[in-house]
Amino acid sequence: MGTQTRLRGLVIVNTGDGKGKTTAALGILMRAWGRGMRVVMVQWVKHRTGNWGEIRAAKKMGVEVIPMGAGFTWIPKPSPDTDARLGREAWAVAREKILSDQYDVVILDEITYALNYGWVDLEEVLDVLRNRPPRLHVVLTGRNAPQGLIDFADLVTEMRLVKHPYPDQGIPAQPGIEF
Amino acid sequence: MGTQTRLRGLVIVNTGDGKGKTTAALGILMRAWGRGMRVVMVQWVKHRTGNWGEIRAAKKMGVEVIPMGAGFTWIPKPSPDTDARLGREAWAVAREKILSDQYDVVILDEITYALNYGWVDLEEVLDVLRNRPPRLHVVLTGRNAPQGLIDFADLVTEMRLVKHPYPDQGIPAQPGIEF
Repeated sequence: MGTQTRLRGLVIVNTGDGKGKTTAALGILMRAWGRGMRVVMVQWVKHRTGNWGEIRAAKKMGVEVIPMGAGFTWIPKPSPDTDARLGREAWAVAREKILSDQYDVVILDEITYALNYGWVDLEEVLDVLRNRPPRLHVVLTGRNAPQGLIDFADLVTEMRLVKHPYPDQGIPAQPGIEF
Repeated sequence: MGTQTRLRGLVIVNTGDGKGKTTAALGILMRAWGRGMRVVMVQWVKHRTGNWGEIRAAKKMGVEVIPMGAGFTWIPKPSPDTDARLGREAWAVAREKILSDQYDVVILDEITYALNYGWVDLEEVLDVLRNRPPRLHVVLTGRNAPQGLIDFADLVTEMRLVKHPYPDQGIPAQPGIEF
């Protein structure tokens, strides 16, 4: 079996209540970029004007990381009008990226919020994933990944919180580490 | 409390049998690099001549990622002479980096193998961590993190395997995603 035929796009899900879901997706972005692959990340929760570590890094690398959320909060509190509209707009962008055949890896960061709040329909997402270019990898992140997504995915990892310093110890999230 | 006093170096452990331990450490590397922080990753298992995705990316970014292992295998099979010697050499480099005060983030990738095989002494590692520059973040990755390390760490995440496509489906590890 040649290399060509062995490359197969995977659907990868990083879920769970622990740290490292988005962070591991960034690691994939970095590895793929290192290999000259074409990568894009669409972000659901982070505010479109944010200047996070990954946004700054992406600018330096010339990679597209597109924050399309209504703002970052540790526990998202949807204000249905804005959040739902932005959530749907992010999906429209992501859908177009997935189907464009211009990428090797597309990352849908925190999309599970949009799925769980009903802003984006899971069946439509699965349909787009089914019809994606065969070698395209798609990475989806966020807490509480719906069972239908887990069933569909090739590779699912649960990031489980074992020990966390905040807020128990009064330590705020650290720049460069968490954002 | 000013920003200055709120920055505190964390000891972060990514462990578990799932994917994303090294990958999430790379995400931290990328975020920190995006913020202009000084980062280095020392790798225990990967072979020093490897040209993995993260090595290629690091070269493009001008970040130090230093593979110091005897070669990559999914299940490490130590040949005590070489592996133990290389494991100790990697720790000597890591120790010097941690104590140099030249970095904001030091990543010890797959160090748990060296700890679990007894090539590197846990108490010595904890001692160096205790004596590190106070704002230095240290990230340690690998399966089966020793309990003493978990007890010492600030933030511990278990990457738990929920679903994995290989080897069940005959799909090899994919470049850009896993390496």
